[in-house]
Amino acid sequence: MTDYGFDVKKETANVVKWIQDFFKENGKGCNAVLGISGGKDSSVAAALCVKALGKDRVFGVLMPDNTQSDIDVSYDLCRFLDIKYTVINIGEAKNAIIKQLDNPSNQTVINIAPRIRMATVYAVSQSMNGRVVNTCNLSEDWVGYSTRYGDAAGDFSPLSHFTVQEVKAIGKELGLSDKFTEKTPSDGLCGKTDEDNLGFTYKELDEYIRTGHIENLEHKKLIDAKYKANRFKLELMPAYENDIKVKACQ
Amino acid sequence: MTDYGFDVKKETANVVKWIQDFFKENGKGCNAVLGISGGKDSSVAAALCVKALGKDRVFGVLMPDNTQSDIDVSYDLCRFLDIKYTVINIGEAKNAIIKQLDNPSNQTVINIAPRIRMATVYAVSQSMNGRVVNTCNLSEDWVGYSTRYGDAAGDFSPLSHFTVQEVKAIGKELGLSDKFTEKTPSDGLCGKTDEDNLGFTYKELDEYIRTGHIENLEHKKLIDAKYKANRFKLELMPAYENDIKVKACQ
Repeated sequence: MTDYGFDVKKETANVVKWIQDFFKENGKGCNAVLGISGGKDSSVAAALCVKALGKDRVFGVLMPDNTQSDIDVSYDLCRFLDIKYTVINIGEAKNAIIKQLDNPSNQTVINIAPRIRMATVYAVSQSMNGRVVNTCNLSEDWVGYSTRYGDAAGDFSPLSHFTVQEVKAIGKELGLSDKFTEKTPSDGLCGKTDEDNLGFTYKELDEYIRTGHIENLEHKKLIDAKYKANRFKLELMPAYENDIKVKACQ
Repeated sequence: MTDYGFDVKKETANVVKWIQDFFKENGKGCNAVLGISGGKDSSVAAALCVKALGKDRVFGVLMPDNTQSDIDVSYDLCRFLDIKYTVINIGEAKNAIIKQLDNPSNQTVINIAPRIRMATVYAVSQSMNGRVVNTCNLSEDWVGYSTRYGDAAGDFSPLSHFTVQEVKAIGKELGLSDKFTEKTPSDGLCGKTDEDNLGFTYKELDEYIRTGHIENLEHKKLIDAKYKANRFKLELMPAYENDIKVKACQ
């Protein structure tokens, strides 16, 4: 147990039970379907689903964007967990849209990939009685490091209230080796690591989230600003409400 | 004013004001970007945004899926509102994914189009300082007639608490002709009209929503069942929560 109260054995058992309950209520006998990037989040989420549902009800979707230099880790993960998987290259679909855009911005080119991946995972899921696993974690969500309606989508979210360090600890508890839990995270899109993009380390961020303590006050400012600016991504979009009554059965 | 209390002039003015307020708070000077199908929802949403922001801050994205027999209505709408637009064909992107799927179900093929469209509208929006308009209405949302993370996505939603009949009335109030407000709605994907797909008429559904009255009890059962089964689409996905404290600034 950490000094701030994270008990990896208890939390792992609870989230496994929660996944089982989600499927009992929202899809008896359905399959958990998720994109497998080879990073810690999809690795740990897949391992949790295997523990909860058994390996035959977990299906991985590998989605390289043309080429993916570290795709071997994704294959290794599927083999290690002994789950079925498919490989769908998103490069052609992505380029088919981008080539029709007038002066696409960098951000456009970066964010279209996770959205095409979302469409792809849902396409696979809908053909196999699936429920799509969201693999976001608390640290990334805290600073808005996700693409709305892209990797932020899904049908259920087992990890979104665990920091990066906690996700790694759960992975180790489930028997995943460092290869799967310690790979330097990168979106695989812009050639930089996540920490390069963010301007602070996950270790700093995680400690700040859980204890309120952070040494570097510039980093604190940056984190607080990102938190504020990105909160909307975790909420339902604003809708115009009126006062007209609804009388049908609800 | 209808007998159940819908005042088209008041509601139109209020939603226009709400759109202006949304942009003041969430994107001063930004543009409203939306997919234009030629149907009533995108037509009325576009007309509302023009009224709220001026025609120079509204941008349409026409997204035929290979061919679209009624695309002329979309062009006419853009000309009528005098807004800028682009045409991006989603056929190639969609097919690039589908051809890699193993035995895709009908539902898969139907739902992938709105998700690719979402990715496309966001790609356009991100390159032009945009905010994406969600064009769902209350009647369709009531029975879950939308694709999660597809046409159900967006940054703000002006029409999602108005029934189909109310959306049409707002359109007429804004000067849209029947060509734009009365076109038989169809998803353009499976060759059927929406009402064929649903098994009841929007008129019946709208009256039931607003007054609680519905003649055909089989249709009532169907609507109530669809309401119950699809409610999750309008909510945030379930997430595993833990008791570990968060202490960073919120």
